[in-house]
Amino acid sequence: MFTAIVSAETLRSTLDSVSVLVDECKIHLDEDGLGIRAVDPANVGMVDLDLDASAFEAYEADGEVIGIDIERLDDLAGMADSGTLIDLELDEEVHKFRLRMDGLEATMALIDPNSIREEPDIPDLDLPATIVLEGRDLNRAITAADMVSDHVEFGVDVEREVFYVDARGDTDDIHLELGREELIELDAGEASSLFSLDYLRDINKAIPRDTEVQIRLGEEYPVKFTLPYAEGRGQVTYMLAPRIQSD
Amino acid sequence: MFTAIVSAETLRSTLDSVSVLVDECKIHLDEDGLGIRAVDPANVGMVDLDLDASAFEAYEADGEVIGIDIERLDDLAGMADSGTLIDLELDEEVHKFRLRMDGLEATMALIDPNSIREEPDIPDLDLPATIVLEGRDLNRAITAADMVSDHVEFGVDVEREVFYVDARGDTDDIHLELGREELIELDAGEASSLFSLDYLRDINKAIPRDTEVQIRLGEEYPVKFTLPYAEGRGQVTYMLAPRIQSD
Amino acid sequence: MFTAIVSAETLRSTLDSVSVLVDECKIHLDEDGLGIRAVDPANVGMVDLDLDASAFEAYEADGEVIGIDIERLDDLAGMADSGTLIDLELDEEVHKFRLRMDGLEATMALIDPNSIREEPDIPDLDLPATIVLEGRDLNRAITAADMVSDHVEFGVDVEREVFYVDARGDTDDIHLELGREELIELDAGEASSLFSLDYLRDINKAIPRDTEVQIRLGEEYPVKFTLPYAEGRGQVTYMLAPRIQSD
Repeated sequence: MFTAIVSAETLRSTLDSVSVLVDECKIHLDEDGLGIRAVDPANVGMVDLDLDASAFEAYEADGEVIGIDIERLDDLAGMADSGTLIDLELDEEVHKFRLRMDGLEATMALIDPNSIREEPDIPDLDLPATIVLEGRDLNRAITAADMVSDHVEFGVDVEREVFYVDARGDTDDIHLELGREELIELDAGEASSLFSLDYLRDINKAIPRDTEVQIRLGEEYPVKFTLPYAEGRGQVTYMLAPRIQSD
Repeated sequence: MFTAIVSAETLRSTLDSVSVLVDECKIHLDEDGLGIRAVDPANVGMVDLDLDASAFEAYEADGEVIGIDIERLDDLAGMADSGTLIDLELDEEVHKFRLRMDGLEATMALIDPNSIREEPDIPDLDLPATIVLEGRDLNRAITAADMVSDHVEFGVDVEREVFYVDARGDTDDIHLELGREELIELDAGEASSLFSLDYLRDINKAIPRDTEVQIRLGEEYPVKFTLPYAEGRGQVTYMLAPRIQSD
Repeated sequence: MFTAIVSAETLRSTLDSVSVLVDECKIHLDEDGLGIRAVDPANVGMVDLDLDASAFEAYEADGEVIGIDIERLDDLAGMADSGTLIDLELDEEVHKFRLRMDGLEATMALIDPNSIREEPDIPDLDLPATIVLEGRDLNRAITAADMVSDHVEFGVDVEREVFYVDARGDTDDIHLELGREELIELDAGEASSLFSLDYLRDINKAIPRDTEVQIRLGEEYPVKFTLPYAEGRGQVTYMLAPRIQSD
């Protein structure tokens, strides 16, 4: 049995965080909160989201797993005015998810969880470099890189103690360096990896300007972006596989 | 002879109210005000608009009937800054309509009224249920219904004294109930009819959030939406034919 | 050698002024400032822009001429927050243009100036009428004319001392007159010429509402629009060839 009451904003942030990578997902409705893990069809980008029961006004669950069409649920949740609460209820008999908001009741068919792409095992990599920065700085680096190229290098220059972003296009280049003063935290280790901007552009949409983002990076290794949401009661991690450096 | 002075806002509201259903219309320029009646090409949606002479700064007419391209006149009227007045004049000799606003003079060719679809007789139906509600509540019901289906049922539950909106899609449903507290007025009579969201979506664009809308409803009968505009000196009624209930 | 520091806003205004007519241009980096002259592919519209060295925070140049892709440079300059400064530097060895802004460094390939359409000689015409008016009045006249026709007549009625704009479409007409009270300045001489709205629509995008624009006009002669920018430290002139009056 699952029933919960949540702010429209928290529900939509949860869905928007996942929809940048996949259209459908399984949601684990565990006793202590909600969890989503998903990987994109090409197996390049993964998302791992946790939202604690304390982020809800009311929350009761017994470990159910449901399959949902993310955009559809996001649209329905969008009918609630921001600042209002949404009542959620799982009707297991008819495989429906029910939302109630200001007198409006929406009933949404669930997707059979077995028909949804299997959830990834998100590896617990030992990545040598950790960078913490403002979302706006990461937003800007990705947007600039995307103007000139379709891939970008993220790296750390250990000696100079800078985190750098480097994009080389056919005619134009972008280079951004952030030192200790511009960063919130820097645990400098040898790191330099190349990533596809197709994915970063999408993930970037889910990174708010004013949120602290932790980046973990290695040498030709996946990158992990971790950020809190829902006033710290939720957390999202994106993991992105590297591209092979061609030069 | 027709001459008038009207605020840009009132002229544009008039045109926008009609353009949601038709592209061209006849305007009756009567001594006591202006009237428009039109039906959409499929004969499903009708509009009946009256604007009293008192809504104008100056108004003089002798019962002329003119044919206009609504969007074209709306575009030209859009050249006036909001809050300014537009001088209107009919030049019957050359079949032109003239607008003057802040030094700008626009002359628009009229359409032969005989070439415009005949005006509908809007039947004076005796509909058993009357509901008065805020435009925003109707906006929300139509928008939500439109997310899940292409048709929607409007009805009144006489016993429970609620007005309801019910949309059933292939996978998802929407149900909205408004009781006496949420409604401005409810004259409950047996009523339940199905309507096409194609039309309601368009009519919805002409229903402001903060206007009181009167809905009259019957059993598999047309619905009428009536709302004031131009500070109560104008009134628009939309009538929409029901769809046959298929189940 | 060229290095300069300029506000993001001034750099973007410069580029936007030119991009309404051409995609690529040569920039003359002279000792006392920057100059751009360009003509559109059809040889109908010309732009002549000067930006004084005093518009820069720092400026040093030796008469270099570089070729640039305007939109590309505009996009890169768009990465600077408005109100911030951009460092510009020409790297002649590798034919690159370098922008630095808030830790971000962008390097852009230059275009061989010889591959860019030759710069026009902008004739020093003796035009009999001069009109100075608010940008917003010119914006409005062009927008209105564009609604009804694809060409427009600009003229001066010497006896009545008015500047007029006249557009005649297939069905609708626009006529705008501005007298001495509405104009900032009027040096009335016989003038009346017809222009293509395709070009005026584009030039209009580069005319701010709150800038004084000087128009010089003759009898079936080109029109010149001259306006200051960058707080008067820059100036743009557009020249547009007339269309042949057909009636």
